[in-house]
Amino acid sequence: MASDPERKSRVITVLNDAGMNAFICDSASEVLLLSGYWPVMGASVAIFTVEGGIYVILPEDEVELAQESSQAELIPYKPAGLDTLDSPIQTLAKPLGQLLSRLGLCRATIGMQMQLGRQPSSYAASVQFRTSLLDLMGNLQPGNEYVACDDVLEQMKARKTPKELQRIRHSVDSASAGFAVAAESIYPGQREVDVAASIQAAFEKSSASASSLRTYGFFYCMSGPNAARASAAYARTRQRRIEEGDLVMIHANTCADGYWSDLTRTYTAGVPSTRQQEIRAAIESARAAALHAIRPGVPARDVDRAARTVMESHGFGAAFRHSTGHAVGFAAANPNGLPRIHPLSPDVLEDQMTFNIEPAAYFDGYGGMRHCDVVAVTPEGASVVSQF
Amino acid sequence: MASDPERKSRVITVLNDAGMNAFICDSASEVLLLSGYWPVMGASVAIFTVEGGIYVILPEDEVELAQESSQAELIPYKPAGLDTLDSPIQTLAKPLGQLLSRLGLCRATIGMQMQLGRQPSSYAASVQFRTSLLDLMGNLQPGNEYVACDDVLEQMKARKTPKELQRIRHSVDSASAGFAVAAESIYPGQREVDVAASIQAAFEKSSASASSLRTYGFFYCMSGPNAARASAAYARTRQRRIEEGDLVMIHANTCADGYWSDLTRTYTAGVPSTRQQEIRAAIESARAAALHAIRPGVPARDVDRAARTVMESHGFGAAFRHSTGHAVGFAAANPNGLPRIHPLSPDVLEDQMTFNIEPAAYFDGYGGMRHCDVVAVTPEGASVVSQF
Repeated sequence: MASDPERKSRVITVLNDAGMNAFICDSASEVLLLSGYWPVMGASVAIFTVEGGIYVILPEDEVELAQESSQAELIPYKPAGLDTLDSPIQTLAKPLGQLLSRLGLCRATIGMQMQLGRQPSSYAASVQFRTSLLDLMGNLQPGNEYVACDDVLEQMKARKTPKELQRIRHSVDSASAGFAVAAESIYPGQREVDVAASIQAAFEKSSASASSLRTYGFFYCMSGPNAARASAAYARTRQRRIEEGDLVMIHANTCADGYWSDLTRTYTAGVPSTRQQEIRAAIESARAAALHAIRPGVPARDVDRAARTVMESHGFGAAFRHSTGHAVGFAAANPNGLPRIHPLSPDVLEDQMTFNIEPAAYFDGYGGMRHCDVVAVTPEGASVVSQF
Repeated sequence: MASDPERKSRVITVLNDAGMNAFICDSASEVLLLSGYWPVMGASVAIFTVEGGIYVILPEDEVELAQESSQAELIPYKPAGLDTLDSPIQTLAKPLGQLLSRLGLCRATIGMQMQLGRQPSSYAASVQFRTSLLDLMGNLQPGNEYVACDDVLEQMKARKTPKELQRIRHSVDSASAGFAVAAESIYPGQREVDVAASIQAAFEKSSASASSLRTYGFFYCMSGPNAARASAAYARTRQRRIEEGDLVMIHANTCADGYWSDLTRTYTAGVPSTRQQEIRAAIESARAAALHAIRPGVPARDVDRAARTVMESHGFGAAFRHSTGHAVGFAAANPNGLPRIHPLSPDVLEDQMTFNIEPAAYFDGYGGMRHCDVVAVTPEGASVVSQF
């Protein structure tokens, strides 16, 4: 149903430039990128040809969802049933072989995913093809050349079309419905799990969530010394009871139909201390400096430098332990996504890139503060998607 | 810290029987199986040698969690930082190469995961190695033979050790804390999302959840006609408002430190109709027949047959659209896991297998009813893990 002519045109250009005849992708984010559909179980395959043909071979019980979000030609297969014990890769062989023949992809160059990637959760459990899809393709069409297209896909995912950006905005809006009850949920005596559960429930019930086919919310609460540990690659809510004066960090990764947000706000349980006010002032200044540095053509490391210099000038250089940002949109966090807002980044900002800006300070045994926004690059500079 | 001598002994036996020198696995469930640790970000590699050596190469910020759950030798690597842009596969090369040399795995036969598999969500986003880990291994030790061990791993995951079963019980107990508020949350006028959010919050805040390091809960509510669609491979909560007399299905996949539950209960919003009572009676009888059929040595298809015969005798044969059960434990649902309680299953029940028993009836446009329990095979027959 939905279509994104801008994305279609970009993919065709990339295929032409790379001398490839088609992409054949199975990871949920890449099926979304190529077709507009975010698979549930991970057992779908998207084929995008240089002629602009878009096809998704998918389990038949996902067709209803796919029709509402994709303009691709949908080729359903029966994923399970009382009359078969075949696995998805076995079931795929027939429709995939037929489609390759129909499209004439027999002495072609095909881009496939081979390298390490990072995939968002699309369900409680999902399929991983590992090397089996590449093996199947080789068996079906041994005359093709199969080349790793992982880097090309990352580059494509970096710059969002207006339609994709609109959907990321929507994902951020639904997350903000959770944050709307954060301040009232945080008080001494509450456990971290209580706070996270209250915020998550507000998110699930929100009207913003209601306008998506599928939403997922991962909300985390980390208080006091646990907030200092939030510099790790993953967040974790614990049983700790919040104490008067604690810094309390709320971190959210939410998803609306495959488009993700990555957001953090930090609160004080009670009246902020002078030290906390100093930390907050430094982070606000670092955020402003990073945002001010953002525009097309700027090296991504300069944005990191802008934020880091402010943190250093406030005496919090060592406490700012991670990079200033990373790509957000097709996943909540993808360290290899582009651009990397990192001291060593070779990336250059381009119009329509989306990423987070997350200046932070962590103090072992005491606490941590982070303010994480989703931003988009526009010709005029940074546009903050998370305006709350 | 924790150790499971029974699991260790079984893995050694399997390696010996298969003539393999070691398993090298990266998927979260298999790292859990081999080491007792359930990775967060998916960027860990477990090595288990035929001599009984257990090693996990993992991001350094996961060491604290791994120490609490695994007896493996932990080899941390720095997954990210201000001084590197390397990806996990690049960072793994050095510690993995050193470990292979130290263990003398140079002209060895190594079992690796190559085929399609199904992995539970371990975080909002996680790493997939695709073909890159196999390529890295081939580069590091080209003299080794790398063989697909996927089937062997599935067989190992089928029979749980007493310790693993205890953890699955714990996962089911935490889910039951959510179900405890289901009946009071379901009434006409409530939306499906409201019900699911209330149940999820009760789960998150429960004391059973408090005794795990990490819990995840996916609770779904499907009411009226939407409950009829619950025969699909995936569940989905919608915005629909519950009406008087609706069948309301609550489906849960919960996880405690990598061990999963798969549970469904069905309620009526108001007073059950005669028809609903008939459906419930049929499902209760089918459940009893399936449980009665379960004992070591019985073909799994006989258990399906037992349940299906009852449903047919009540006139609900066509409404019972899916198989009677599937493996549960290392994932909430893994259709290729063993045993498959399916009409065509070649599997035979063994002591210590765990799976679900989920007799159900679906009526398009009207509703659906399912009762899904987690059960374990004991020498005396079925032990129902979900006693609530």
